[in-house]
Amino acid sequence: MTDQVVKQCRDELHTHLTTELLPFWITRTADHENGGFVTHFDEYGNDSGEDEKSLIAQTRSIYTYSSAHRAGYGDGKLADLARHGVDYLLTRMWDAEFGGFYWMTNRKGDVLNDQKIVYGQSFAIYCLSEYTLATGDPRGVEYAEKVFDLLQKYASDTAYGGYFEVFKHDWTLTGPGAAGGNRKTLDAHMHLMEAFTSLYECTRQAIHRRKLLEVISLLVAKVMHPAYGTGIPQFWADWRVAPQIKFDVIWGWDRFTEDGVKRKADDNTSYGHNAEFAWLLLHALAVLEIPHETYINQLQKSFSHTANYGVDWEYGGVFVEGSHSGDVYDREKEFWQQAEVLIGFLDAYRIFGDAKYWKAYENVHRFVMDKMVNHEVGEWWPLMTRQGIPIWTHMSHSWKINYHTVRSMVQSIRRLDALLTPSSPAD
Amino acid sequence: MTDQVVKQCRDELHTHLTTELLPFWITRTADHENGGFVTHFDEYGNDSGEDEKSLIAQTRSIYTYSSAHRAGYGDGKLADLARHGVDYLLTRMWDAEFGGFYWMTNRKGDVLNDQKIVYGQSFAIYCLSEYTLATGDPRGVEYAEKVFDLLQKYASDTAYGGYFEVFKHDWTLTGPGAAGGNRKTLDAHMHLMEAFTSLYECTRQAIHRRKLLEVISLLVAKVMHPAYGTGIPQFWADWRVAPQIKFDVIWGWDRFTEDGVKRKADDNTSYGHNAEFAWLLLHALAVLEIPHETYINQLQKSFSHTANYGVDWEYGGVFVEGSHSGDVYDREKEFWQQAEVLIGFLDAYRIFGDAKYWKAYENVHRFVMDKMVNHEVGEWWPLMTRQGIPIWTHMSHSWKINYHTVRSMVQSIRRLDALLTPSSPAD
Repeated sequence: MTDQVVKQCRDELHTHLTTELLPFWITRTADHENGGFVTHFDEYGNDSGEDEKSLIAQTRSIYTYSSAHRAGYGDGKLADLARHGVDYLLTRMWDAEFGGFYWMTNRKGDVLNDQKIVYGQSFAIYCLSEYTLATGDPRGVEYAEKVFDLLQKYASDTAYGGYFEVFKHDWTLTGPGAAGGNRKTLDAHMHLMEAFTSLYECTRQAIHRRKLLEVISLLVAKVMHPAYGTGIPQFWADWRVAPQIKFDVIWGWDRFTEDGVKRKADDNTSYGHNAEFAWLLLHALAVLEIPHETYINQLQKSFSHTANYGVDWEYGGVFVEGSHSGDVYDREKEFWQQAEVLIGFLDAYRIFGDAKYWKAYENVHRFVMDKMVNHEVGEWWPLMTRQGIPIWTHMSHSWKINYHTVRSMVQSIRRLDALLTPSSPAD
Repeated sequence: MTDQVVKQCRDELHTHLTTELLPFWITRTADHENGGFVTHFDEYGNDSGEDEKSLIAQTRSIYTYSSAHRAGYGDGKLADLARHGVDYLLTRMWDAEFGGFYWMTNRKGDVLNDQKIVYGQSFAIYCLSEYTLATGDPRGVEYAEKVFDLLQKYASDTAYGGYFEVFKHDWTLTGPGAAGGNRKTLDAHMHLMEAFTSLYECTRQAIHRRKLLEVISLLVAKVMHPAYGTGIPQFWADWRVAPQIKFDVIWGWDRFTEDGVKRKADDNTSYGHNAEFAWLLLHALAVLEIPHETYINQLQKSFSHTANYGVDWEYGGVFVEGSHSGDVYDREKEFWQQAEVLIGFLDAYRIFGDAKYWKAYENVHRFVMDKMVNHEVGEWWPLMTRQGIPIWTHMSHSWKINYHTVRSMVQSIRRLDALLTPSSPAD
């Protein structure tokens, strides 16, 4: 590829970010009546009215506005939005008695679900660290550290390592099975790596560094497939692979059949997760100042599996999931997987210099810009057919907010800029 | 055996405890000038003058006086002694900046070694919980909980489970090898089980129960030999067995050759540890209200290995250590191993009703009463030849205090009483 092609891609993303995505959120998300963010919008960008504020959507919003502000966007408006979100998070979602953030409130701020779910707590650490890094407001890191300490005390499994994931409000474990108390997931541990990276970047405390190194070691040694290096979604507490089930409290719209079962519950890996894991690992190593060569085999496996099996060369974009050895099971197109592989393929191209990664990037880039983005409204469709026809049509709800889309644009632009001026930092 | 034999044993221990052991300590250990306890006495019971107060000796003393008071001994004098020790521990050995207890002060209270060593922290939790249980003084459990929280945050290994063991004053890990930062031991994890048992008995908090269950699960699944059920002394962080080495900072007088090497560093188990582990496990299960049948195979292996291979039927007493499969390597007699197997064999007899355990008890009982106790002075010899001639002759130093000896008497008397009146509780 030429600099001109890179520049075109970069400008296309920049235009989308600054004239579509960010304006979409800046103009409608602040809840001036109740505090925090309204996070439910239909395909036209109208408030679709669901009376809930999820920990995920509130914290991801705070991350989005903080990180975009830190990256130089928004002329201060995004910092104001982030502060507005932090005010709500700390006053309405924090449990002053037991510590930690509740899972769900209604729009007014009454608690609807008081469970302490590690996935949500990890986003609290992530967004609050990023918020302090972006604004200097010390409240962010103060609460991020509180949550970190609570996870070490209550969530850590001192028998087998890693973290239990689903707790009642008082930090006692929920029951087994769909309640989630006896399983461990790729998802939660990957996002703890992401969260501890930002926490360590913010505090430079030795204990935050050590726990980040420990979760990286765990992810590589236990969560990745021993042969293929691909992510395994679910485990029992002792790290034997568990068949993938649907939890009572979901934290994404993972795709199951009507009866909550995966077709291939024992041999399933997500292209989006593999690419996301790899670029988050690269970012963690950069913050830790550890050479990425330390994990080069893992990175090679993560990225190449996504590029070799996940990319749809016929219709564009990346598939949902498939087997560890390569068979594709689900050829639909989810928004977040597209977002994450854009960053991942650019990182893979930077590290390995292999043209297949650039081609994979361009492929997904075109699919996103031509199909996935709802340009008239500003956000991305959540789920499309293989060919690119919207299946779900909401622009946002509790599990689809702006974290993947805005982050993908901010991070991809940074990486494309670095390709144009190779001396600039890409991490 | 007959009730008369049991009664004779019981009375012999009771006389030793109340007329020799406890008076030895009550009359000489309080340091009225500097606070805390003097813990160095020679074979005549005279202060041998070493200018140190170790965390181990101070906390074990507090445990001894608290638990003996709680068991009904001392007419209040032991509670006063315990309080005297707690005053010193909290004012001179607590690190107000980083939390946790220093490893060593001099007699005046100046810090000589500021490392945070999990073995010592576990005794702080143990003695402070027992102190509150014995006296009602809330300072004990307040600091026990602080240490528990610090261990969860700093010592827990979230990659492989269990706890790292040797830290600098600021809770950063020490280096590898003899510094101890990359090893895990049976010793520390067994004493964490012991400590969390008393902490949970004191607080009845769900998190203390869960962490106790986790460390039990870890001990049984990882620390015990997969075939023989015997304790393995040292591991790497990922629980591969590590050859036994001597640490820079020792917490007992583990026996090594001059060059700090074990003759059989890869196949070594301690009879005293195996019996101690099993009765501490039984006690933990009783406090947890979990039937001991849950771990009956483990208990059977622990006790029977000690009885089958550890007992010296020729000269009496229990050997130091041998191979997992049964060969005895070291036939000398250490004080603490005798103390622990007395309790262990009585528990084994209670659980399994096998006469071999009573015979083993009687054998060690006689060796202790006839050889190991220095009756004129009141305490036990630390180390004897196989035949029962003292090798080391101090009555106390930083690593030999009254915890094993007094606890053995208190716990054995309780178990012998229960044999005489079978309806009384033995735990």
